[in-house]
Amino acid sequence: MTHSELIEELVAANRILADRGVFDAYGHISARDPGNRDRYWLARSMAPAQVSADDIIAFDLDNKPVRAGENRLFYERVIHGEIYKARPDVMAVCHNHSPSLIPFCNSDTRLRPMVGSAAFLGEGAPVFDIRSVDDDGDMNVCSVPQASALAQTLGAHWLVLLRGHGAVAVGQSVRQCERHAIIAETNARAQIEATILGPVRFLTASEIAYARRMPPKDADRAWQHWKRKAMGGAA
Amino acid sequence: MTHSELIEELVAANRILADRGVFDAYGHISARDPGNRDRYWLARSMAPAQVSADDIIAFDLDNKPVRAGENRLFYERVIHGEIYKARPDVMAVCHNHSPSLIPFCNSDTRLRPMVGSAAFLGEGAPVFDIRSVDDDGDMNVCSVPQASALAQTLGAHWLVLLRGHGAVAVGQSVRQCERHAIIAETNARAQIEATILGPVRFLTASEIAYARRMPPKDADRAWQHWKRKAMGGAA
Amino acid sequence: MTHSELIEELVAANRILADRGVFDAYGHISARDPGNRDRYWLARSMAPAQVSADDIIAFDLDNKPVRAGENRLFYERVIHGEIYKARPDVMAVCHNHSPSLIPFCNSDTRLRPMVGSAAFLGEGAPVFDIRSVDDDGDMNVCSVPQASALAQTLGAHWLVLLRGHGAVAVGQSVRQCERHAIIAETNARAQIEATILGPVRFLTASEIAYARRMPPKDADRAWQHWKRKAMGGAA
Amino acid sequence: MTHSELIEELVAANRILADRGVFDAYGHISARDPGNRDRYWLARSMAPAQVSADDIIAFDLDNKPVRAGENRLFYERVIHGEIYKARPDVMAVCHNHSPSLIPFCNSDTRLRPMVGSAAFLGEGAPVFDIRSVDDDGDMNVCSVPQASALAQTLGAHWLVLLRGHGAVAVGQSVRQCERHAIIAETNARAQIEATILGPVRFLTASEIAYARRMPPKDADRAWQHWKRKAMGGAA
Repeated sequence: MTHSELIEELVAANRILADRGVFDAYGHISARDPGNRDRYWLARSMAPAQVSADDIIAFDLDNKPVRAGENRLFYERVIHGEIYKARPDVMAVCHNHSPSLIPFCNSDTRLRPMVGSAAFLGEGAPVFDIRSVDDDGDMNVCSVPQASALAQTLGAHWLVLLRGHGAVAVGQSVRQCERHAIIAETNARAQIEATILGPVRFLTASEIAYARRMPPKDADRAWQHWKRKAMGGAA
Repeated sequence: MTHSELIEELVAANRILADRGVFDAYGHISARDPGNRDRYWLARSMAPAQVSADDIIAFDLDNKPVRAGENRLFYERVIHGEIYKARPDVMAVCHNHSPSLIPFCNSDTRLRPMVGSAAFLGEGAPVFDIRSVDDDGDMNVCSVPQASALAQTLGAHWLVLLRGHGAVAVGQSVRQCERHAIIAETNARAQIEATILGPVRFLTASEIAYARRMPPKDADRAWQHWKRKAMGGAA
Repeated sequence: MTHSELIEELVAANRILADRGVFDAYGHISARDPGNRDRYWLARSMAPAQVSADDIIAFDLDNKPVRAGENRLFYERVIHGEIYKARPDVMAVCHNHSPSLIPFCNSDTRLRPMVGSAAFLGEGAPVFDIRSVDDDGDMNVCSVPQASALAQTLGAHWLVLLRGHGAVAVGQSVRQCERHAIIAETNARAQIEATILGPVRFLTASEIAYARRMPPKDADRAWQHWKRKAMGGAA
Repeated sequence: MTHSELIEELVAANRILADRGVFDAYGHISARDPGNRDRYWLARSMAPAQVSADDIIAFDLDNKPVRAGENRLFYERVIHGEIYKARPDVMAVCHNHSPSLIPFCNSDTRLRPMVGSAAFLGEGAPVFDIRSVDDDGDMNVCSVPQASALAQTLGAHWLVLLRGHGAVAVGQSVRQCERHAIIAETNARAQIEATILGPVRFLTASEIAYARRMPPKDADRAWQHWKRKAMGGAA
C-alpha cells in the first residue's frame, strides 16, 4: 500500500464514520505507516466529515508532525502514539464518542459480544478511568502518562471505553479498526435493548476463541457498502 | 410468473429490505422456482442494495449453481436449500440480522405478536442454537447438518431466530417472506418498548388462528409502498 | 370552507401523517362535510403518501360512497361513520398504527399527558378490546357493531387505543385531529422513556381542565411547519 | 460583533437547532445586545426553521419591541427578559422542548453530566414547577411573575427544566447557549439508556469544577460542523 493509497483509505474512513454517526464534529482515526513503523498518518484538527487527502499529515510516535509548521493539531493525538508504541500489532487507531457506547462508559455493565461479528469484544471491553493517572478534572487524554495508562488498560483488547468520555478502537488495518468502531456501536445498542428483555446471553468462550483464530468472512463487503453510502458513486 | 418476473421480484425485495434497514451490507433473500421446485434463485454474494437482475442466479437444492463457473457465492446459501427441502410449502427464504431481533436472539423472552399483522409469529418464534449441532465456535450456518438442524427448529413456523446471529424468515411468496421479515423487526421494537411499560398482552390463540385461516387484507399495498420508497418512480 | 378547500386539507393531512411516520402504507383520515353533516370525505383505499385530491370521495354515515361505482374502499371506513354518528362535535377522524402507541395498546399502563400540548389525553386514553364485541379473531374493525362499540369506548375522549392494533384520533377539525395523532405518538415515546427513569409525573387535573377550556396558542404554526416539510415549497 | 453579525448568528442558531431536532415548530433563541445590555434580539413568532435576518427584532428587557408596530410576537418572550435581568453574565437564552429532556421534566431523576462536554449540568439541572407561582393550569410561561420565578430556579445554572413542558438553556454567547441546548439533549438520551444498564456514574465534583474553570477545547468546530449541515455550503 502506497502512502497515497493509505491516505485515501483514511479519507474514506473519516467520511464513513461521520456518515454512520460514530464521529460527529469530533473523533479521529489514524494509520501507522507500514513502510516506517515509527510514523503514523492522521488528519489535522477538523471535523471528520470535511477531511480530504490534503488534510492528512505524518506524525512520529512522539506525536510531533514530521513536517515543520503544522499547527492545527488534535490535542488527543497522544493517544495514537502511545498505542502504536504499546501494541506493535496495531496498524490503526480510532478515538470516538459513539452515542450507544457512552452508557457503558459510566456503568458496571460490561460491553460484551451479542453476535459473531462483535466477538472482538471478547469477555468484555475494559473501561479506562483517567483518575487512575491524575484527578485534575480534565476528561480529555492530552498527556503522555494519561495516554500510556490508557494503552495499558487497552492491553491486548481491540476496544477500550473511557469513563465519562468515549472509546478507542484499534485494528490491524484501517478497515478492521473502523469495523470495530462501527460494530461496537451496533452491539452496544443491541445489548441495551436486550437488557430490557431480561438476562442476556453473550457469545461463549469457544465462539470468542473461534473469531480470534479465523478472519471474518467477506468483511470487505461492509467497507465497500459503507463507502458507497458515505461518498456516493461507485466504490 | 416467468423467470424474469421472479428475478425482478427478487431485485425489488433486496432493495426494499436494504432501504428499510432489515439488510445492511449482508443478508440474502431467495425464491424457489415455481416451474422447477428443485431449484431456487438467489443473488451472487454482494451487498443487497446493489443487486440487479444480472446478479440473480439459479441453484439446485444442494446449493450448487446451475450454470458452471459461478464462484462469488454466499457461504450461508445452504440455509436456503435445506429449508426448501424441509418445507414444501415455502417459496421464499430470507436470512438477515435485523437490529431489533438481535436482543431476542440472546434472551429467554420470546418474540410474540403484538398486532394482527404479526400473527404469523404464533405462540413465539423458536430460537436455533448452533451448538446443538457442533461447538466449533463459528456462528455462521455454512454446513448441511447445521442448516438442516436450523430447518428442523424452524419447523412449521414462519420465522426462526439464530442465537448470537440473526433470523431466517420464510413465506409462500417473495412478498410474504419479505413482509414477515419487515414486520418481525417492527414487532420486536414494539415488544421491547412494551416491556418497559410492564406485563405485555399478546394476540390470543383465537387471533393467531384467525390469521392462519385468512390472508391479510390488502397486503400488496405495503409492497407497492415500500418499493416506491426504495426504488423511486411509479411502482 | 368549500369542498375543494376541505379536500386540499385532507390531502395535506395524508402527506403530513405519512411524512411524520404516523401513517405507513396504511392509515386513513376523514373529514365530516360541514355543509352536510351526514356525509364525510375520505380517500379511496391506498397508501396515504400517494393520496391526491382526485382520490378523496364522499360517503354517507352508513359508509356508502355517495357516487355509484366506487369500489376501491377501506374495509375499516365503518369506524368513521360510527364515530360521526356518536359524536356530533367531531369533524375529523384518523385511524393509524403509530409505532409508539402499540406498546400502550397491549399494556395496563395508560397513555397520559406528559406536556401541555398532550392535555387532550386527559386522565388517560381508553383501550378498546374488540373481544368485547366478538371473538372471531380478526383484529380489524370491519362491522357496524364493532365500530359502534369502539365509538362507545372512545366516549368523550379525543383518542382511543385498540388492543393489538393501533389508535383512532378525533378532532373538531382536520388540523386538530391530525395534531392529536402526532402529539399522541410523541407523548407515548416520552412516556416510555420517562418510565425508564422511575415514577412519572403527569399533568394535573387543573392543567388538563385548563387545556379543555382554552385553545392551544398558535397551533396552526405546527400545521404549516409540518406541511412545508411534507409537501415542500411555501405553505 | 456588529448588530448584523449578531443577527446572522441568531439565524444560524435557529436553523441549526431545527436541523438537530432541538426545535420543532416551536422554540426560540435570543441574544442580548452587547452594545446595549438592556436590549435583546429575538425572532418574530414563527417556526425556527424559517427564520431569516429580517425576522429578528429588538426588545427591551420588559419584552416590548423597540420598534412600534411589531405584533407577531412569542407569548413566552417574557422568559428572555427576566433571565437577562437576573443573570448579568448571560448573553443568550434558548427555550425548547427537546424530546429527550421531557422525561426528566416529569421525574425525580435529575439530569446529570455523563461526559465532559456536559459538565455545565453540574450536580444536576433544577426543575421549575409553574405551580410554585400559580395553579391556573396553563403550562406556558407568559407572565412576569412566572418568568421571574423561573429565572430564580435557574439560579446560577446553565439549564433549567420546566415540569410538563421543556427547558431553558442559557450561555455567555449564542454559540455556548446553543451548545448547552444540543448537549443537554444528547446527554439526556445517554442517561436514559445508561439507566437501563444499572446504576449510572456521573462526572465527579472535581471534573465539574474543572469544566467551570476551563473553556472547552475547540468548541467552535461543532458550531461550524452543525452550521454546514443545517445551512449547506461552506461555513
